[in-house]
Amino acid sequence: MKILGIETSTFSGSVSISDDDSLLCEYVFNTGPRHNEVLIPTVKRLLSDCGLGKNDLDAVCVSTGPGSFTSLRIGVSTAKALCYSLGADLAGIPSLEILASNALWSGNDVCAMTDAGRGEAFFSFYDSGGVEIAEAQIATPESVCAGIKEKTVFVGSAALLHENLIGKTLGENAVFLPGNLNTPRASGCALLGRKKILSGQKDDPFTLTPFYLRRSAAER
Amino acid sequence: MKILGIETSTFSGSVSISDDDSLLCEYVFNTGPRHNEVLIPTVKRLLSDCGLGKNDLDAVCVSTGPGSFTSLRIGVSTAKALCYSLGADLAGIPSLEILASNALWSGNDVCAMTDAGRGEAFFSFYDSGGVEIAEAQIATPESVCAGIKEKTVFVGSAALLHENLIGKTLGENAVFLPGNLNTPRASGCALLGRKKILSGQKDDPFTLTPFYLRRSAAER
Repeated sequence: MKILGIETSTFSGSVSISDDDSLLCEYVFNTGPRHNEVLIPTVKRLLSDCGLGKNDLDAVCVSTGPGSFTSLRIGVSTAKALCYSLGADLAGIPSLEILASNALWSGNDVCAMTDAGRGEAFFSFYDSGGVEIAEAQIATPESVCAGIKEKTVFVGSAALLHENLIGKTLGENAVFLPGNLNTPRASGCALLGRKKILSGQKDDPFTLTPFYLRRSAAER
Repeated sequence: MKILGIETSTFSGSVSISDDDSLLCEYVFNTGPRHNEVLIPTVKRLLSDCGLGKNDLDAVCVSTGPGSFTSLRIGVSTAKALCYSLGADLAGIPSLEILASNALWSGNDVCAMTDAGRGEAFFSFYDSGGVEIAEAQIATPESVCAGIKEKTVFVGSAALLHENLIGKTLGENAVFLPGNLNTPRASGCALLGRKKILSGQKDDPFTLTPFYLRRSAAER
């Protein structure tokens, strides 16, 4: 199964091509909010680098949020349009689950958290078995830490941003990843999306919508 | 500090641009042994994607092996030539240390292992504090597993390739990462290389050589 992965839930983003569980090619960019310019040319280039054409794609897996309003829309719209045009299967995966997959294998509790601006973070907790303990929420980093009593791995842009505060609050119970593993990866989205499709839960390109925790500035 | 990362120790490879500890851009390719074609055009493109020119580079960090003979030579030669031409600092980092950095934060023992062909693997063990326990060696996966009594995280192409054998031999003591985290990343090389340079241990572009564990086919 040739899979295109698209992850645009933050100001960074990534695109990947996988063959089943094997990563063929991945591009990660953290070069400002230019997802709209970058996305389609990157898809085209990566396909070409892998010796593939757009019609070889069997599936598109996309990060659905929560995250940055506009960049999520760009990613999800692109994935839906590609699936509609090419007849590929579609799988939407929660952004925080993609991020958590960088750390969940360690067998510790994981808190995936990304910067939501205004001093807040989008966050979600996963137990050591990889099960999401509570639905994604938005809160200050102080609130995220309140009540944590077990060793917990923090991953994501908000973990990097608030590392000092989290470390001071939780001491040795807080574990952090090297800087380069705090980005949600399109290749991680593709691994989770493939599982979802193989279990018969593919999404509908006519109805899949991004998942927000805040209304857009325009709606407010 | 603007850092170019180059990782070409396996049949896959990656190139990254970082600003201090922040990843700006990364390209990972697993598209066959085409490092020679791919490397310089990728460096040029990533710099351009970041709005940088070659003269903005302060440092080049490169994976030094063990690994694939020819692709290591290409990576190290390219890094040395760039540093000589541009006056950038150079840091060479052992390939297995780059790979191990994907897992070392977890606090478990880590075995980084990459496929060496002929049924063997390049491997190295790190303790839970991140210290390399024994120098990189080459052996069969059976030998790598012999004597392991603690929970150990296996990472790298040989961990993927021999996952069944390792899992059967070690049971619950063997931990594996998702497929996409088994690639050594240029961004991980850049993080380690920056630390090395800041600690005053930069390498010399006239004398740095790749590190092999086998003689080349030509030498044999």
